[in-house]
Amino acid sequence: MRVPPGVTSQDFSTALEQFAKAIGREWVFTSDDDVDLYRDSYSPFWHEPEEPIPSAALAPDGVEQVQAVVKIADTYKIPLWAISTGRNLAYGGSAPRLSGTVVLDLKRMGRVLEVNEPNAYALVEPGVSYFDLYRHIQDQKLKVWIDPPDPGWGSPLGNSLERGGGRTPMHDHFAQVCGLEVVLADGTVMRTGMGALPGSKTWQQYKYGFGPYVDGLFSQSNFGVVTKMGVWLMPAPEAYRETSVFVPKHDDLIPFVETLSYLTDLEVCRGTMLLESPVLAYRAAHGGSVLDMPGGPTVAETERMAEQNGLAYWSMVLRFWGPPKIIDAQWGYAKEKFSAIPGAQFKEGVYYKFPVDPNSLPPDTLKVALGIPNLSVFGLLGPTDGHMDFSPIIPMNGETVFEVLKVFGQAYADLKVPPSYQFFALPWYFFPRAFVLLFGFPITHDVEKNKKTREVFKHMIEVAAAHGWGEYRTHTAFMDTVSGVYSYNNHALHRLHETIKDAVDPNGILSPGKSGIWPKRMRKTTA
Amino acid sequence: MRVPPGVTSQDFSTALEQFAKAIGREWVFTSDDDVDLYRDSYSPFWHEPEEPIPSAALAPDGVEQVQAVVKIADTYKIPLWAISTGRNLAYGGSAPRLSGTVVLDLKRMGRVLEVNEPNAYALVEPGVSYFDLYRHIQDQKLKVWIDPPDPGWGSPLGNSLERGGGRTPMHDHFAQVCGLEVVLADGTVMRTGMGALPGSKTWQQYKYGFGPYVDGLFSQSNFGVVTKMGVWLMPAPEAYRETSVFVPKHDDLIPFVETLSYLTDLEVCRGTMLLESPVLAYRAAHGGSVLDMPGGPTVAETERMAEQNGLAYWSMVLRFWGPPKIIDAQWGYAKEKFSAIPGAQFKEGVYYKFPVDPNSLPPDTLKVALGIPNLSVFGLLGPTDGHMDFSPIIPMNGETVFEVLKVFGQAYADLKVPPSYQFFALPWYFFPRAFVLLFGFPITHDVEKNKKTREVFKHMIEVAAAHGWGEYRTHTAFMDTVSGVYSYNNHALHRLHETIKDAVDPNGILSPGKSGIWPKRMRKTTA
Repeated sequence: MRVPPGVTSQDFSTALEQFAKAIGREWVFTSDDDVDLYRDSYSPFWHEPEEPIPSAALAPDGVEQVQAVVKIADTYKIPLWAISTGRNLAYGGSAPRLSGTVVLDLKRMGRVLEVNEPNAYALVEPGVSYFDLYRHIQDQKLKVWIDPPDPGWGSPLGNSLERGGGRTPMHDHFAQVCGLEVVLADGTVMRTGMGALPGSKTWQQYKYGFGPYVDGLFSQSNFGVVTKMGVWLMPAPEAYRETSVFVPKHDDLIPFVETLSYLTDLEVCRGTMLLESPVLAYRAAHGGSVLDMPGGPTVAETERMAEQNGLAYWSMVLRFWGPPKIIDAQWGYAKEKFSAIPGAQFKEGVYYKFPVDPNSLPPDTLKVALGIPNLSVFGLLGPTDGHMDFSPIIPMNGETVFEVLKVFGQAYADLKVPPSYQFFALPWYFFPRAFVLLFGFPITHDVEKNKKTREVFKHMIEVAAAHGWGEYRTHTAFMDTVSGVYSYNNHALHRLHETIKDAVDPNGILSPGKSGIWPKRMRKTTA
Repeated sequence: MRVPPGVTSQDFSTALEQFAKAIGREWVFTSDDDVDLYRDSYSPFWHEPEEPIPSAALAPDGVEQVQAVVKIADTYKIPLWAISTGRNLAYGGSAPRLSGTVVLDLKRMGRVLEVNEPNAYALVEPGVSYFDLYRHIQDQKLKVWIDPPDPGWGSPLGNSLERGGGRTPMHDHFAQVCGLEVVLADGTVMRTGMGALPGSKTWQQYKYGFGPYVDGLFSQSNFGVVTKMGVWLMPAPEAYRETSVFVPKHDDLIPFVETLSYLTDLEVCRGTMLLESPVLAYRAAHGGSVLDMPGGPTVAETERMAEQNGLAYWSMVLRFWGPPKIIDAQWGYAKEKFSAIPGAQFKEGVYYKFPVDPNSLPPDTLKVALGIPNLSVFGLLGPTDGHMDFSPIIPMNGETVFEVLKVFGQAYADLKVPPSYQFFALPWYFFPRAFVLLFGFPITHDVEKNKKTREVFKHMIEVAAAHGWGEYRTHTAFMDTVSGVYSYNNHALHRLHETIKDAVDPNGILSPGKSGIWPKRMRKTTA
């Protein structure tokens, strides 16, 4: 039997017995076969002793069972790693940060507690996946849309609290959270926002409540176990259109991004948008790189490549949701604004007026942009065993994109890794007012390769930090490193996180190491 | 010399001497004449011993001086009440919650540190007022709008952290906050979000940073002194139009609000909107009430009154900001949707294409909707000495509005106060997805009247809570009462607030009693 660190076998056995009494013996998993299902499916430590392996898993159902589990864990100082569906595979899956942690699997709590159509919100439990919520809404024929992330098997609760996103105008998922129910480390159940008012009528309609607004404390953190979450939905729009913009020259990116920024800040363009470069994609496909490698082709050479092959330098798909006349006016205005860039070209894409039968959609449809959860993104990924995402936030301007391509090109050269070693996406407009980069580093069964990848990953974090760019989220394996670069004034923010951690979880049982936050008793040995 | 509670005269003198060394003697105010300027200009305790009166005031300039002040206060356990411009007169002005508290006046920190036009944000200090920021932007001829609250003399920092709002699409002010600098109770200076990354390039462009998102902790709270704040602005729109919608019957409110909810959730209609009732205003002007008083006119009678006088039952001004073709399409669509209500009527209002000379605007222009700060709202208020706002959040549906009119009508009858005793506004769409009511209770120089008003105010809080409606904000005098009704599970959220308070401010020096949160050493005597 695996045992959590610092816990005696005897205490652990006693605790397991108590867990069994609290939630039913069949929901306490201790056999290696069962527990191994909770290991990271794509661990960067595959076949190495550092891979964090849980000691057990518990699957309570209902907030009272969660309270009971937390109280027992608090008594015996047993670390718990709370997961909802555990599907954020690029960031660590269902595995804990620390070997021996007990996984608190909330998948059984899969009830859609409410979907309100006129006010467009839902109240969900942790185990509700995007598929579940979508099906529930379809079954009830409610005219609201969800905003699924690219793979739809995760949960609104988990994805929103990890501050992930989707593609529709509701893409910033944490911004759609309205009201939490949280079990604290001492077993207290608490409701935030208007939920703190008994019999509240606006728990899912007004976020902030009275006094300090604490919801953010429960995102990317280990300060409590969230057992219910309100999430705002989008009223089903009447129509949807996809369009594309192309500009010919390298330097066009500067007015291109400035225009995009203006249009998004005005809410003329909404939803997630990906910067693309037809010519850089071509260059990469012909032995070059999207990145600006030292000694690689110059801007002039690449512009010639673009011209010779009839390729734009930069492009972007714009999407519009809403009443036809409004989205037509929005697209018209976007065209007018982008037309200020000489040589700008436009392409009309699909145009749907709803209802549309999801089964009638062409196979290359980006279904998530239509609020339909699916798993097709996995078909797009390269032939790797798995990947983990490096995702720094960068300023939303063209000059920074040029700098990024150069800085990471240089980093790759310095590390002597081929540019094709990883998946790299040009900036996404994924959060309001900022760009995020997405690098996908491969995880393989080759220990040496994984070691090298980890080294590259750490170096990338440091290179980014040296330029003032920081990650919005990271794989469990790099939480300490990323947390470490957020070091302003001798890690003042991190020290506040620790102060709060010690106050709300004095025995340090909840998700030790999450986002680099360790409980006091583990701090010295791990820092 | 007034002395803070629990502090010896000797310690206070020593501390004042140290404050003078830290920030300059001329910025330490101790004479009654000087300190009285910080009293609540409209205290509900006027001429009563309960009026909280500060013992001194300090006006540091710069974060280092704030750090120095906080460290000295922490040493001598001197309570500080931080204010920016101290102008939220309906909620307590610049006066502390607790008599003897030293006001920490941040008005001298009035620097606009940055306004970024392409990414539409500003970085401001606490003492920057909406007027200051507006003038700065006008002087620099930047094409961005601010979103001032009705009286423009407050500060973006104070208003946003109190979770106030304005009228444009940026009306939810806390939602526009991006990045804080905070001085903690031990004098540590901390930056949140991306500001925790030294040399960060996206402090004002991405809110959440890495790990727990803590900005909400510093809203309506006493966990730190905020010394810098990022705030998102709106790109200057090309045009603006005002329109109105009218519906004839009482029950029309149900589809009216449902349509409004749909249009706002889709972002077709944006900005703050006020429900109005021409017939109820008429009824109130003729000896009746907007509220549904027991024994008052029936719905049928009021509908007849509406018909006989050619008045709509319900109406609303809608405002649109953006490119002309888009706002025309948005208004067209709103009309189409509201037209589903039989007898709906529409009125075109002003239509501006910018630039427009602010001096050319008609005197009745709602300038704040054009991003122009002003003080004209004070001309609209009744002939009272002052007022304090009771502002509960209610669900966004017509049925609740009916219930509200009845419940508060009954409350007024029970309390035997005339409906004309207070200013009452029908629901505002002031925050996304919710309605807020606004009652303005008069403050006078008549002690007995103020006593009665306080009694009414408390009763209103309790009546609202009994119906599941809670205040979004309150006057210092009622912070304990409002905090008290947010009591789910034996005040679990409040207890979390206290746990955090004790952890981050163990000596309890920062704004004791703010939002009902008292430091440990004052908790027993005040709870």
